[in-house]
Amino acid sequence: MEYKFSDKLAALKPSAIREIFKSLTNPEIIAFAAGNPSAESFPVKEMAEISAQIYADSPVTALQYSQTEGYPPLRQAVSARLLEKFGIGKSTERGDAYTDTTIIVSGGNQGLELACKAFCNEGDAVICEDPSFIGALNAFRSNGARTLGVPLCEDGIDTDALEELLKTEKRAKLLYLIPTFHNPMGITTSLEKRKKIYELAKKYEIMILEDNPYGELRFAGEEIPTIKSLDTEGLVIYCSSFSKVLSAGMRIGYLCAPEAVMSKIIVAKQVEDVHTNIFFQMLCYRYMTERDLDGHIESIRAIYRRKCAVMMKGLEENLPAELKFTRPEGGLFVWCVLPEKIDMNEFVKRALERKVAVVPGTAFCPDADGKSNAVRFNYSTPTDEQIERGCVILGEVAREMLAE
Amino acid sequence: MEYKFSDKLAALKPSAIREIFKSLTNPEIIAFAAGNPSAESFPVKEMAEISAQIYADSPVTALQYSQTEGYPPLRQAVSARLLEKFGIGKSTERGDAYTDTTIIVSGGNQGLELACKAFCNEGDAVICEDPSFIGALNAFRSNGARTLGVPLCEDGIDTDALEELLKTEKRAKLLYLIPTFHNPMGITTSLEKRKKIYELAKKYEIMILEDNPYGELRFAGEEIPTIKSLDTEGLVIYCSSFSKVLSAGMRIGYLCAPEAVMSKIIVAKQVEDVHTNIFFQMLCYRYMTERDLDGHIESIRAIYRRKCAVMMKGLEENLPAELKFTRPEGGLFVWCVLPEKIDMNEFVKRALERKVAVVPGTAFCPDADGKSNAVRFNYSTPTDEQIERGCVILGEVAREMLAE
Repeated sequence: MEYKFSDKLAALKPSAIREIFKSLTNPEIIAFAAGNPSAESFPVKEMAEISAQIYADSPVTALQYSQTEGYPPLRQAVSARLLEKFGIGKSTERGDAYTDTTIIVSGGNQGLELACKAFCNEGDAVICEDPSFIGALNAFRSNGARTLGVPLCEDGIDTDALEELLKTEKRAKLLYLIPTFHNPMGITTSLEKRKKIYELAKKYEIMILEDNPYGELRFAGEEIPTIKSLDTEGLVIYCSSFSKVLSAGMRIGYLCAPEAVMSKIIVAKQVEDVHTNIFFQMLCYRYMTERDLDGHIESIRAIYRRKCAVMMKGLEENLPAELKFTRPEGGLFVWCVLPEKIDMNEFVKRALERKVAVVPGTAFCPDADGKSNAVRFNYSTPTDEQIERGCVILGEVAREMLAE
Repeated sequence: MEYKFSDKLAALKPSAIREIFKSLTNPEIIAFAAGNPSAESFPVKEMAEISAQIYADSPVTALQYSQTEGYPPLRQAVSARLLEKFGIGKSTERGDAYTDTTIIVSGGNQGLELACKAFCNEGDAVICEDPSFIGALNAFRSNGARTLGVPLCEDGIDTDALEELLKTEKRAKLLYLIPTFHNPMGITTSLEKRKKIYELAKKYEIMILEDNPYGELRFAGEEIPTIKSLDTEGLVIYCSSFSKVLSAGMRIGYLCAPEAVMSKIIVAKQVEDVHTNIFFQMLCYRYMTERDLDGHIESIRAIYRRKCAVMMKGLEENLPAELKFTRPEGGLFVWCVLPEKIDMNEFVKRALERKVAVVPGTAFCPDADGKSNAVRFNYSTPTDEQIERGCVILGEVAREMLAE
């Protein structure tokens, strides 16, 4: 049998990260290529206690079919937290022009995929930062959307180039952004740029999809308001998750968007998985309301503050000055731009031969044939000792290649 | 802001079942409209024990990111069970013409949606039994596919009409079937028809999507081989889940299909939710290998054998002879065809006024504007007493309407 696959999937390649991720099961490899939360960051004892309580007092609710929108108490708790911590959530009852609502999704990636499905016909365009998160890019492509990149500068997307594209591209439906602790670049968009981006979205009537999986992981600098908190017109779909603050493996994320948008997204979610694992939704709710989520997040920030510092020290001490890397104030990633003399793919290959896995920058190109002379490093997954050793090895590889 | 949604979602209405499902939270309502496994059927104590063990011995694996394909030991255990119980799973190592592989998905509905996404471009067609499962129909529509119905007879789909359609419809990519304990009709396709259907698929080169969520729930009659067990050419994608045998709320299902097909489906799953909740995948694996899954399923069969008998007795004693209903040998559903004199929507409305919720047959029409003079009853969700009382009320409504 010769299979004839759909056009939108025939063109989609397995993610480069995912293939590298598989190689990471080898314990000899130093995993600078991963994006996993630190194994230290899971509150195992408390999750075990809450799980036992759920089986004891609400087993049928926790194991039976549930609502597509999510467990109502969790939706409420997330809404309250979004309002309190991020100024997110409009309500006509509070005098706003429209009402936002929150639903639970099976991890942030599903939220991004659903938002695209709700707005994009095949051939429509999603405008993205260049580089951008590979999981999102592939989610958009799987809906037959074109992913168009706009360069990402140190203070956020290039708004002049963005406006130029908005003027000419008539089928742009979504503007996808990771304004805080960007993946892969690790940078944060300034408040000024956030305001400018919002004004452009309003002017050109395009929806913004704001992805904020790392927003609670700031370990330096000052908080900057989310774009969603500026959303007076109902243009922003906000996506985040519990993956980086409780557990990634449970696949619990959430979306906050105007009710009219959400009614479409709920229909789209219903046909994908009916609802998200209800047991872990209940667990998240109880953790949020009965335990100290803020305190737990503070402990995760302390872990990443330390790990990032170890990596910064290692890179400063070992990388030749020709290699330029970002200095994140939160999140999980460092972006390193190589000098012209160093071929990026060869650098990745030689690093892996010496057991350090990094992600080639091409994996993050909105243009599938895009070029990159950069690589992404992650500090949350490896141990402190591995970070130190990995930086030494990367320095050796770089010096060797510069000397050739 | 006036939102412009994608064409494929703009046309998609929230499932009629889902809206009725919400009304079922009212405890006064007798829930003949649901499709939930019985609350008695969850092995709570054992699941609690296994969960505690997972937290104790493998917390990081259970809470960290995992592989898109699913937890390898669970994939292996499901493959072994499919081969042993259903004769499913080809392997070139065993001398077959191709090799099947099994992946874990977030409930059976995701499996159906992914299979469609892998094969259907917008405007392509999925041929379905008429009536068919609303969740599947909407999953196909959400991919922009047309759903084309072929009448379902007492021994399975009308194969003459099916061949006629296969001859004329050039864009048919999938043939979607629920051959065993059909939802909504409760009937089972004969072996003879299964063979005939497979031959037609081979002749017209169309993939079969065999949905078998209730396959383990036989409580009367003889087992009939799955269509997948007849699949010498690699034409069949087989979908099932743990929803009806362990827990629906955990959202763990699986697909078995030729490796070449699965490689596309894995890419599609990756962009939807990265992977399925890993904690409950581990739980399923341990339940399968350390506990008595067969014994547990036998106890569920006993529950449904009893509940179905209560409903059969209630319908026989209370419904006027003009109403014809199916007599299932397994699964969860009874299909009741009303006489011309009774308007179906009015029947559903009056039943609900008297606190019995049933599903209108139109919810299951592959043609969105299709007509139906039938309703679906479920016996797994209500208590035995509710089943008895519900049948009395339905009899009263029917007699009242026949007398008008």
